[in-house]
Amino acid sequence: METRLPNVVVLRWGHRHSRDLRLTSHVCLVGRAFGVSSIILADTIDKRVKETVGAVSERWGGRMTMEMGTPWKEAIKEWKRKGGTVCHLTMYGENIESSDVLERVRKTGKDVMVVIGAAKVPGEIFNLADFNIAIGNQPHSECAALAIFLDRFFNGKELCLEFKDARVKIIPQKHGKNIVTK
Amino acid sequence: METRLPNVVVLRWGHRHSRDLRLTSHVCLVGRAFGVSSIILADTIDKRVKETVGAVSERWGGRMTMEMGTPWKEAIKEWKRKGGTVCHLTMYGENIESSDVLERVRKTGKDVMVVIGAAKVPGEIFNLADFNIAIGNQPHSECAALAIFLDRFFNGKELCLEFKDARVKIIPQKHGKNIVTK
Repeated sequence: METRLPNVVVLRWGHRHSRDLRLTSHVCLVGRAFGVSSIILADTIDKRVKETVGAVSERWGGRMTMEMGTPWKEAIKEWKRKGGTVCHLTMYGENIESSDVLERVRKTGKDVMVVIGAAKVPGEIFNLADFNIAIGNQPHSECAALAIFLDRFFNGKELCLEFKDARVKIIPQKHGKNIVTK
Repeated sequence: METRLPNVVVLRWGHRHSRDLRLTSHVCLVGRAFGVSSIILADTIDKRVKETVGAVSERWGGRMTMEMGTPWKEAIKEWKRKGGTVCHLTMYGENIESSDVLERVRKTGKDVMVVIGAAKVPGEIFNLADFNIAIGNQPHSECAALAIFLDRFFNGKELCLEFKDARVKIIPQKHGKNIVTK
């Protein structure tokens, strides 16, 4: 049986072709593996990202959709219009560990859009976001930040997700590999 | 006052120049930000990674050292000889959420080397590792895997680290940016 998680979408801001290809792909793979329902690659179209993620989903399953090219401001405003809340991950925000920000996000009871930037994001994002959340107030990685945010928001349940439409499945081992075809 | 965390080093296996530059840099930045004491870039030397991490450490502080070029097997064996334990992060391993593997790592009371691969790792690593740990049994990202492992191993304390030698410091904000020079 599939675990049910709250509905989360990710908006990737500022993806730069070539330069960000692998990082954005990793971000998308984290989204897929952790049960995010949709990734929006804002303002740009990069088929190679879609191919990478598509190939993994084809084999490992999952229903995450990918949307590309939507202008970021439109995507955020549309999300809020539909009643969702927006969490922007930034090292300048409220610390997820030392503040009650995650609790306040939960209390909204709303579906969540997580915004992560590649390059420096426009100041306007800080204002449009309902929550600016720091996964620590140090520079590191948006891929790491997204992973920790989701791990905490989903209470670790995302690490046990099983995808009905997967062709293969790993049987966890202390040593070695065990992968079965379904 | 600086928070004291257990001693963790990271061994990055299989770094490929150019292709992995940004991912490896992100991995190193996660290590620095989260209080890892040392990163070993095994079997290869990539000055650009060192420069990126060095520039961040120069401004944001931290004492993480970087070692490059050490043959991976030697580094792992030397770590074990000195009494450390080795945790290899792999999607084939014991699930960190659904098993007691993290508890067993803690119980060793030993310093921890975290091994993460870029490309497919040699089977021998699975045997040399004391623990093969899956941050979920799905393919995603070694950067995400490292971040979640450290967040759980350090019980979230790594997100509040302050570095004595930092030149700048962020004051967390609900909206906007506040960065002070120390």
